[in-house]
Amino acid sequence: MTKWVYLFKEGDASMRNLLGGKGANLAEMTKLGLPIPQGFIVTTEACNDYYARGRQVTDEVKAQISDALAELEKEQGKKFGDNENPLLVSIRSGARASMPGMMDTVLNLGLTDVAVEGFAARTGNPRFAYDSYRRFIQMYADVVMEVSKEKFDVVFDAVKEEKGISLDTDLSADDLKEIVKGFKEVYKKELGEDFPQDPREQLLASITAVFRSWDNPRAIYYRRMNDIPGSWGTAVNVQAMVFGNMGDTSGTGVAFTRNPSTGENLMYGEYLINAQGEDVVAGIRTPHPISMLEEELPEAYEDFIRIADQLEKHYKDMQDMEFTVEDRKLYILQTRSGKRTAHAALRIACELVEDGMITKEEAISRIDAKSLDQMLHPGFDDKVLKASTPIGSALPASPGAAAGRVYFTAKTAKEAGDRGERVILVRMETSPEDIEGMHASEGILTARGGMTSHAAVVARGMGVACVSGCEAVQINEEGKYFTLNGNTIKEGDYISLDGSAGNVYLGDIPTVDAEISGDFNTIMKWADEIRTLKVRTNADTPADAAKAIEFGAEGIGLTRTEHMFFEPDRIPKIRKMILSKTAEAREAALEELIPFQKQDFKGIYEVMEGRPVTIRFLDPPLHEFVPTADEDIKALAKDMGLTFEEVKATCESLHEFNPMMGHRGCRLAVTYPEIARMQTRAVMEAAIEVKNEKGFNIIPEIMIPLVGEKRELKYVKDVVVETAEAVKKEMGSDIEYLVGTMIEIPRACLLANEIAEEAEFFSFGTNDLTQMTFGFSRDDAGNFLDAYYENKIYESDPFARLDQDGVGQLVKMAAEKGRATKPNLKLGICGEHGGDPSTIEFCHNVGLNYVSCSPFRVPIARLAAAQAVLNKK
Amino acid sequence: MTKWVYLFKEGDASMRNLLGGKGANLAEMTKLGLPIPQGFIVTTEACNDYYARGRQVTDEVKAQISDALAELEKEQGKKFGDNENPLLVSIRSGARASMPGMMDTVLNLGLTDVAVEGFAARTGNPRFAYDSYRRFIQMYADVVMEVSKEKFDVVFDAVKEEKGISLDTDLSADDLKEIVKGFKEVYKKELGEDFPQDPREQLLASITAVFRSWDNPRAIYYRRMNDIPGSWGTAVNVQAMVFGNMGDTSGTGVAFTRNPSTGENLMYGEYLINAQGEDVVAGIRTPHPISMLEEELPEAYEDFIRIADQLEKHYKDMQDMEFTVEDRKLYILQTRSGKRTAHAALRIACELVEDGMITKEEAISRIDAKSLDQMLHPGFDDKVLKASTPIGSALPASPGAAAGRVYFTAKTAKEAGDRGERVILVRMETSPEDIEGMHASEGILTARGGMTSHAAVVARGMGVACVSGCEAVQINEEGKYFTLNGNTIKEGDYISLDGSAGNVYLGDIPTVDAEISGDFNTIMKWADEIRTLKVRTNADTPADAAKAIEFGAEGIGLTRTEHMFFEPDRIPKIRKMILSKTAEAREAALEELIPFQKQDFKGIYEVMEGRPVTIRFLDPPLHEFVPTADEDIKALAKDMGLTFEEVKATCESLHEFNPMMGHRGCRLAVTYPEIARMQTRAVMEAAIEVKNEKGFNIIPEIMIPLVGEKRELKYVKDVVVETAEAVKKEMGSDIEYLVGTMIEIPRACLLANEIAEEAEFFSFGTNDLTQMTFGFSRDDAGNFLDAYYENKIYESDPFARLDQDGVGQLVKMAAEKGRATKPNLKLGICGEHGGDPSTIEFCHNVGLNYVSCSPFRVPIARLAAAQAVLNKK
Repeated sequence: MTKWVYLFKEGDASMRNLLGGKGANLAEMTKLGLPIPQGFIVTTEACNDYYARGRQVTDEVKAQISDALAELEKEQGKKFGDNENPLLVSIRSGARASMPGMMDTVLNLGLTDVAVEGFAARTGNPRFAYDSYRRFIQMYADVVMEVSKEKFDVVFDAVKEEKGISLDTDLSADDLKEIVKGFKEVYKKELGEDFPQDPREQLLASITAVFRSWDNPRAIYYRRMNDIPGSWGTAVNVQAMVFGNMGDTSGTGVAFTRNPSTGENLMYGEYLINAQGEDVVAGIRTPHPISMLEEELPEAYEDFIRIADQLEKHYKDMQDMEFTVEDRKLYILQTRSGKRTAHAALRIACELVEDGMITKEEAISRIDAKSLDQMLHPGFDDKVLKASTPIGSALPASPGAAAGRVYFTAKTAKEAGDRGERVILVRMETSPEDIEGMHASEGILTARGGMTSHAAVVARGMGVACVSGCEAVQINEEGKYFTLNGNTIKEGDYISLDGSAGNVYLGDIPTVDAEISGDFNTIMKWADEIRTLKVRTNADTPADAAKAIEFGAEGIGLTRTEHMFFEPDRIPKIRKMILSKTAEAREAALEELIPFQKQDFKGIYEVMEGRPVTIRFLDPPLHEFVPTADEDIKALAKDMGLTFEEVKATCESLHEFNPMMGHRGCRLAVTYPEIARMQTRAVMEAAIEVKNEKGFNIIPEIMIPLVGEKRELKYVKDVVVETAEAVKKEMGSDIEYLVGTMIEIPRACLLANEIAEEAEFFSFGTNDLTQMTFGFSRDDAGNFLDAYYENKIYESDPFARLDQDGVGQLVKMAAEKGRATKPNLKLGICGEHGGDPSTIEFCHNVGLNYVSCSPFRVPIARLAAAQAVLNKK
Repeated sequence: MTKWVYLFKEGDASMRNLLGGKGANLAEMTKLGLPIPQGFIVTTEACNDYYARGRQVTDEVKAQISDALAELEKEQGKKFGDNENPLLVSIRSGARASMPGMMDTVLNLGLTDVAVEGFAARTGNPRFAYDSYRRFIQMYADVVMEVSKEKFDVVFDAVKEEKGISLDTDLSADDLKEIVKGFKEVYKKELGEDFPQDPREQLLASITAVFRSWDNPRAIYYRRMNDIPGSWGTAVNVQAMVFGNMGDTSGTGVAFTRNPSTGENLMYGEYLINAQGEDVVAGIRTPHPISMLEEELPEAYEDFIRIADQLEKHYKDMQDMEFTVEDRKLYILQTRSGKRTAHAALRIACELVEDGMITKEEAISRIDAKSLDQMLHPGFDDKVLKASTPIGSALPASPGAAAGRVYFTAKTAKEAGDRGERVILVRMETSPEDIEGMHASEGILTARGGMTSHAAVVARGMGVACVSGCEAVQINEEGKYFTLNGNTIKEGDYISLDGSAGNVYLGDIPTVDAEISGDFNTIMKWADEIRTLKVRTNADTPADAAKAIEFGAEGIGLTRTEHMFFEPDRIPKIRKMILSKTAEAREAALEELIPFQKQDFKGIYEVMEGRPVTIRFLDPPLHEFVPTADEDIKALAKDMGLTFEEVKATCESLHEFNPMMGHRGCRLAVTYPEIARMQTRAVMEAAIEVKNEKGFNIIPEIMIPLVGEKRELKYVKDVVVETAEAVKKEMGSDIEYLVGTMIEIPRACLLANEIAEEAEFFSFGTNDLTQMTFGFSRDDAGNFLDAYYENKIYESDPFARLDQDGVGQLVKMAAEKGRATKPNLKLGICGEHGGDPSTIEFCHNVGLNYVSCSPFRVPIARLAAAQAVLNKK
């Protein structure tokens, strides 16, 4: 028979998956002989069983709960519902990973009309007993029966008014009895049944409510944000109540063994005398710093300090503890590894290694790689931020903090930037035409688009803060204002964006620059010693490349050449190329672009100083480059000596039903090989010149995008090689270069063995591969993905975290097939996933050579790559 | 050492792959002792070697050609370039499959300034010799050196004019000598070198030219149309010349052993006295029927009849032969299985079986399944057609012949149809809104879209002729006319469309209905005995279903429910549903649709009489249903009591960047489960009512489209099952039903083992699967696929013929994974590929249970399914 329920004394810390984090630690502390209010744990398996049976708790589980309860009653010498010494318990969730505040809790369970009298007698404090009872009724109704709290507040306030009382603490025991009576009436009215007088019924209903809360919307959202699988389930902890609110010799508090903001090795915490845990959190009374407890309750304080020290040493990590003092006696209610800022995480890890408590490897494993993001970007001044309330929130598309004046077009944003203003660009969505305005902005806010929309990808690349997909934003471009949840913001008004949290604020919140600490460098050094995956960056400009090198990038995995074409001195030339009617005219237009493109590459090569640089050839559909507004078309027509109608017709002929699946990528080079010829010439001439001028040994890696067939790659490669060899000959150089391909089409994965015959490297373009494999586009999926998350069909955003089950199969297949043809085939990833820790671990496990990500994510990737090595061991 | 060259006497008919069809048959006939001008064959492998080496013929191949030539000279007792008895040869291509007229031929090779004199002396006919020489120079320059024929015609005409001669035959030997001189001057002027006087040089250059012609654009196109792989290569036949133009005891002709149009067992052919083969083809002189040869050259005739009979018996098939009589002696130049109409193919196959010459299985194997298409649709009157020239051609999107008056909108087409006119609808492209107008039309012509565009798919479903993607069509909707290659056609003008050939004609060409012969039924009966694959049809209406049953369909594999929503009495209701702001309002709107949808299903069930019916739930993105024109939006707003702005905003919010990868398929049911509930109710109520009323045992198969994940299918399936069970209970029925899914997303293939847990059947939607696997949309691929064909990157349209290398891997994977979970999982295909013979063979080989295709392709599928069984043996 499955054991569904464990007494605390039956478990230990190793049983985290079964008992949840909280339960396993309570068991462990029990084993250590610490003062823990005893109880039992209903396992995560019981939770999964509940869901598997269509939300039913079996009789077997119920029987085991009953047995555990009997054992607890015996041990505590108290009885459920007793009129002399009733047992009261708390019911708390506890998943494998900590999900603070996401699931439900019930306190004081066990109070009934009978038990409350026993409780009053036992504590000698009827006021306290009835206060507990009314709290319990309200909490139970809310959490277990889903009756709104406000229904009870009405009664509570009416009694207070009737008695002319303003402070809750002035209510007498009789007042509270009256309130309890009123609460029970509300309960009956709302639910059509009496408040349950059988504590066992209360208990089962509460345990079920905690199971149910595993699937409430905020828990689902939290899991998605933190990569926690829905299949883990939650355990339920049933624990005897102790009371910190039994007078001035009682109290409750929380404390960290080190400072969670800075990492400083000093006990950090606060407490309240005569209070329950929720009072500390609620913020009605101001708690005291933990050090003051030494004066108020010296024995309890000493005990606590000793135990805290013991726990940190035992768990070898900074602990976050909750405690209660009941009549001078200390109880530990919970301990766990404390949440901390990235700064603190690095400092604590380094100091624990210094103190010999953990190894470097353990230190590396401990740090949440994703959290590094926040410390590299500028952040808001904490004090001002705390005093501000967001007026809206959406996707944290590109981290960092930004404040500035609102503008609605790339043009006005650019102009304001040129005037020296700080700018926030607010758009429905951005397009490549907006690139200049985006460059000129501190931050970008879009109404549409996901984590991998154009705005998000470009902003991350630039290190510009971005909040995307804020559907509540309604832009009136003509009126030059936007509204967001009732606020109207006009052009020129200040707003602030927190791109790490996805929040939008009114006004100009001051920002502070990121400081990179010595601890950061220490941890990065250790990570570099461990990892085997190389880390490259996606960079389109010398500035991006320089930033990435500062963060430790070892090369460029993706330079998008099209972004260079949107500069104002270039776009007319590319438009001319597109509107050319013959290959000759097209070649002439391209000829004019070579010097610009070459200059771009030289700038990047010089910064990279001989590190590998992968250059992707023109990828987007050509219609992205042509104007859409009639006036722009007119200007272009005039410029080219064509009629408006001719130009307009050409622009319209470029329309595609599904541009993502249209004439783009290497398909452009197949139809217009002269484009590939121009780009090859620019790549090669730049490399040879930089080699000659600076002595760097540049080996350009030319990457052909969107290949689905060997002959397609060969066709374009032949053009590249022919041109490259011609350039080498002309310039008398023997420079090396590689030609490879992006693997981003399912067919390329299926036929990777053939494609590898023509490729010197593969780089996985997992953005497109994800789109094609799932059959939905990242720009359109926003309309339905929320429904998918709510219904637990997908648990994470496949554009942020690689779908290892599906897309991962294709990546693995392509890696294996490619290596079957060429055992030393160089493999990398340059999709947005390249900066995601779980994806990086996957890449390590399937044997990729490198990951490539935006500059600010390079440190994350270095750390995650080291963690991948450690996890595999 | 590889043997690259075979003398005729070294080969036989079994060596077709190496020697090509023509070469293998010449060898076989040599073996049979028939009168064949001797020669040798350069193999297909030599051709492939030529391409593999970047278009180079190796010295090894050259040496073997030289040896073979020496052998031929010895055998013929003639010498290359000899001044007394020169050897002349013809050079002809000969691939594994016959590709008539697609590649190059050179005749009279070996003539030089010296040899022409020898030839004149030997034949005693200088005029003939010089005529041959001038023909050779011109042909050689054209075919081998790529100098336009016209350059020579100028000289030829000048001499004729100078001499005052109008008929070529009036030119004297001296005139022809002068022309030869002039031709050689043109040759030198154009090419900067003298006309080669070494016959060996002529020979090698000509062989190389034939190799090269394997990759000329028309050969590539022909191969694509006929599924012939580019990797086969062509052989080259070098054969001693015989001359049918040596006077009145010579002649040349072609003949079929049976009538290739009707199949009648009567020798069918024609000949010319004193002529070469090209004269018969050129049509300058009218050839005589073959029977007349008996009088003119009785011995040759008798020989020919005897040999023809021998060859048909030998090859056990109707033969197409070329022969030449040189001075009363008969030579056979070629034999091959003759091309024939579908009617003739069926009759010949049946009669050969009757005569005991071949088995039923051989008969089945022989018939080109694709050719059945032409005989099921109405066709044009042959005589009128022959007198007409197409004014344009494009994709043969839906077979059949149609003539009618041109209209440019669905509305006007419908109105004209209602007036009793025959209508041809001409559109840029069609959309689901056009469905009524399409129904009212005899044929559809579109300027955009491929073989699987909306117009093509719907037209094939309806059995309406369609020519699609005719890019030369320029429509002026306002002016109510279109132009096509210089012709202007106004609204109301007649045009005719040949949907089987993809041709467009001016005027009203009369059509004749298809007649289904007894032979057809015989062959179908034999096919049904052999095949194991079931054949279903894609049908959205009772009429389509009835047509399909007439053609032998065994069930419906795909009913697209959305097509039912475009009827004028329904579209307002679906629009109301889409514009609903709440689930309740949406349910109310859907409620109104149930009776219509139920009526549709009842109609289909009644026709199908208990055969299986697969019903696909709503698939297209919702924006396809909403109006786009402002006036329609206004009308709708008025109808719904909303403002224009509200309705317009909702319509615009449905816009998607990539609708193909957007909010459609089961994603609609996940976000709006009430749609699935409505459809389930209609499916089930209809089935129960038809069962009760007619006694047919209906087992509806409900198909959920676009699934990519097990939980997604389960979510929708739960809604379906809940509703279906409720309907059963309400109506007191115990009817059975299945719930399955379309497999059309790569991820579904990769995770088919999981998806099979929730599916009772899989049906492969290979249209979408092809799009996602290749990463291009069928509507947009037209812009670049031509460049892919020209560059031999792809050899066939992946939307017409399943890409077995890539997409096929996914289909196979999904079939295997699905059956690993459920060994008896029912598997089918309902994409457009389901009617393509090569795809059907693939489906048979991977173990599918059925294919489903449009009604007119059902017989093709039955035959192809039988052929698949035979091919596997």
